[in-house]
Amino acid sequence: MTELSPVLQRADQNIQKSLERLFQLVRIKSISTDPTCKDDCRQAAEWLVTTLSEIGFDASVRDTPGHPMVVAHHEGATPDAPHVLFYGHYDVQPVDPIELWENDPFSPALKDLGDGRKVITGRGTSDDKGQLMTFVEACRAYKEVHGTLPLRVTILFEGEEESGSPSLKPFLKENADELRASCALVCDTSMWDTDTPAIAAALRGLVGEEVIITAADRDLHSGLFGGAAANPIHILAEILAGLRDETGRITLPGFYDGVEETPENIKASWDQLGRNAENFLGEVGLSVAAGEKGRSVLELIWARPTCEVNGIWGGYTGEGFKTVIAAKASAKVSFRLVGQQDPAKVRESFRAYVQAKIPDDCSVEFKEHGGSPAIQLSYDSPVLSKAKNALSEEWTKPAVVVGMGGSIPIVGDFQTLLGMDSLLVGFGLVDDRIHSPNEKYELKSFHQGIRSWARIIAALAN
Amino acid sequence: MTELSPVLQRADQNIQKSLERLFQLVRIKSISTDPTCKDDCRQAAEWLVTTLSEIGFDASVRDTPGHPMVVAHHEGATPDAPHVLFYGHYDVQPVDPIELWENDPFSPALKDLGDGRKVITGRGTSDDKGQLMTFVEACRAYKEVHGTLPLRVTILFEGEEESGSPSLKPFLKENADELRASCALVCDTSMWDTDTPAIAAALRGLVGEEVIITAADRDLHSGLFGGAAANPIHILAEILAGLRDETGRITLPGFYDGVEETPENIKASWDQLGRNAENFLGEVGLSVAAGEKGRSVLELIWARPTCEVNGIWGGYTGEGFKTVIAAKASAKVSFRLVGQQDPAKVRESFRAYVQAKIPDDCSVEFKEHGGSPAIQLSYDSPVLSKAKNALSEEWTKPAVVVGMGGSIPIVGDFQTLLGMDSLLVGFGLVDDRIHSPNEKYELKSFHQGIRSWARIIAALAN
Repeated sequence: MTELSPVLQRADQNIQKSLERLFQLVRIKSISTDPTCKDDCRQAAEWLVTTLSEIGFDASVRDTPGHPMVVAHHEGATPDAPHVLFYGHYDVQPVDPIELWENDPFSPALKDLGDGRKVITGRGTSDDKGQLMTFVEACRAYKEVHGTLPLRVTILFEGEEESGSPSLKPFLKENADELRASCALVCDTSMWDTDTPAIAAALRGLVGEEVIITAADRDLHSGLFGGAAANPIHILAEILAGLRDETGRITLPGFYDGVEETPENIKASWDQLGRNAENFLGEVGLSVAAGEKGRSVLELIWARPTCEVNGIWGGYTGEGFKTVIAAKASAKVSFRLVGQQDPAKVRESFRAYVQAKIPDDCSVEFKEHGGSPAIQLSYDSPVLSKAKNALSEEWTKPAVVVGMGGSIPIVGDFQTLLGMDSLLVGFGLVDDRIHSPNEKYELKSFHQGIRSWARIIAALAN
Repeated sequence: MTELSPVLQRADQNIQKSLERLFQLVRIKSISTDPTCKDDCRQAAEWLVTTLSEIGFDASVRDTPGHPMVVAHHEGATPDAPHVLFYGHYDVQPVDPIELWENDPFSPALKDLGDGRKVITGRGTSDDKGQLMTFVEACRAYKEVHGTLPLRVTILFEGEEESGSPSLKPFLKENADELRASCALVCDTSMWDTDTPAIAAALRGLVGEEVIITAADRDLHSGLFGGAAANPIHILAEILAGLRDETGRITLPGFYDGVEETPENIKASWDQLGRNAENFLGEVGLSVAAGEKGRSVLELIWARPTCEVNGIWGGYTGEGFKTVIAAKASAKVSFRLVGQQDPAKVRESFRAYVQAKIPDDCSVEFKEHGGSPAIQLSYDSPVLSKAKNALSEEWTKPAVVVGMGGSIPIVGDFQTLLGMDSLLVGFGLVDDRIHSPNEKYELKSFHQGIRSWARIIAALAN
């Protein structure tokens, strides 16, 4: 067992140099969607290989049909040390509109905001170069103090996260044996607020469907046919209205199979966060929680499945009026999934429900728009509780275990292709302006992020 | 009292000349929507004035801001003879696509189809020059035999029917005293089939509404907000689905006020027409009557009110998928009215129903798209039964009293502005291709149409 406190001291001593190394990485214009930045992307990968090699990793640039991956390995202090896979991405978003930036996006700087906060400015400082460097610098501090790492660590950095990760799945499949570890550590998420660290333990899955209902073989005049001919918009409205009962529960048979109630202690910790319908929905002009009755907004968006109509169209939608009965009506419908809900079964249940509501002389066509299961880290997983304690000690405030309403594809891929759970810990803040002009990363996020990873590494080694 | 049979004989003797006169009128290119045909429209009006003057009418061209009206008066045989207003229109539809015409649209001809049918070809032969000339030629035959007409007759021909009749309402208002009669005769409709004459006694009214529901003040990400934020498409779907109960009845409070059951004898006559869901809806690819259960298709489209969604839109409607919760969702909704339903009350009831379904943090906006009451000629009106008997004698088959699913604005205007019921009798056939290339009017329609009006004129005089 390796001692932690000298590692934390070393991280503190290193911070200026850590920052300089981050600046070097931020200066590389690794915009993955911009073809003119192809060489910059490779340069970023090479810079990471050099940096990881310096601290004892067996690191290499690995070609893909797109931008290269970086893979690096480090043995643990003992042969039976737990094995973790750390994931981050070195590519960044484009910088348009460039004229809105106060500083050059690729000339990082430390800016004192005067209110006690210092921020690192530049494209990718928060998403995700600053975040991935917190882990690399934590490893460096460890290595410098103890000559080794207490865990066996594999690192995977990709260069296509901001362009849909086309090479990732094939790469994971081809290199599964090399990359598989006991768990993945992903540093691409946010704190709850400036003082409260967060671990994302639940990510909702998604099923997307498109429904096209056809009634007559042409548009009809509503005077001549109205009252006798089927109107596909009516059929569609009834189908959509029937998906929900008066308590907001989804009515599809079997829909809630695999949905578990969130543990009381987790719900209690969410209640303490002070997020309610008024302040959460107030930001977008609403105030009343829709959806299932009797549940908090955080439970609704993190821990409950939904059905949403994302688009609907049919008939005459222009200016004025046209007394037409449309031949067709369509909707795009999505389901957010939680727990162990099976995307295939949800899709099947939805299609059976719709089909049963189609009159004999009408027809329905379905289009599939993707499906992925929810990710749910067990709330009593040892990895989760160790990381939680480590973060709580660093930030002197209990870390909150949160959910995320949307999906993060890489986490699903790790689960499906490598059979690994992911621990999602990140130090971004909601006002970091990722994907927008004037992206920043708090110096505190960077510094305490490094210390946090040092603590988590130590905790996971025990 | 004037004798009818010599009038019918004269109509038969005249038929060749009647046809030549119709040809003269058809040759005039009176396309009301085409600015280059302005003089032609006036020429048609002048031709009608000349023709009516020939047979003793006090006829004149009357200017409007658009194309002129023709107004003509003829005294009756006695001072207390009933007074009728006959309406028709001398303007015609454009002829595009001209290349699809087999004969020049403005060079009318009599064509022997070889199956016993002879048809008059040319634009306006059926809609409405041929039809209006049936009445004019009936008056001529009467005049030639008896030197007068048994009724006091006012004629109104307009030249803007095919372009929305912009001058009609003001003209009716300004000349109400001159034009008001005990009833209006309108010749712009069809037979039930080639052998069966028809009188349209019921025309449905219309209320048009647009509903725009607003939830959040921007489009939301369904991962971040789904399950907690109101989705305006769901609200709209529930509103639309709730407009109808499981028997197909409209649920709006007071909606059926003023709706009377169709008399059993009328329903029985409709049942004998052999029109059912299979053959009526089969033409457009359907087979099952939608709407109110337990009613025949003819009752549904002629005698029952409806609610139809004519258009719906909201959220993402393009290719692929977007996990968005829309800020707004909209629908265009119309109600067909029957009997004494009040358009204003229906609109009010609809708006109150919708408003009550809008959550506290959402809002709704309404746009009005027109409203007109239904027209219902009393089924036991003497005018109706006299005309019915006259037509039945001429065609040696009982005339059928039908409804029309859509409205004819002129009939509403006569009701509202002049307080007159309209008797709708016409001799068009569904295959006359009005508004399309190769319009035609059956010689039989023209000839027996003239005889029919002679009989109706005689019947109404008694």
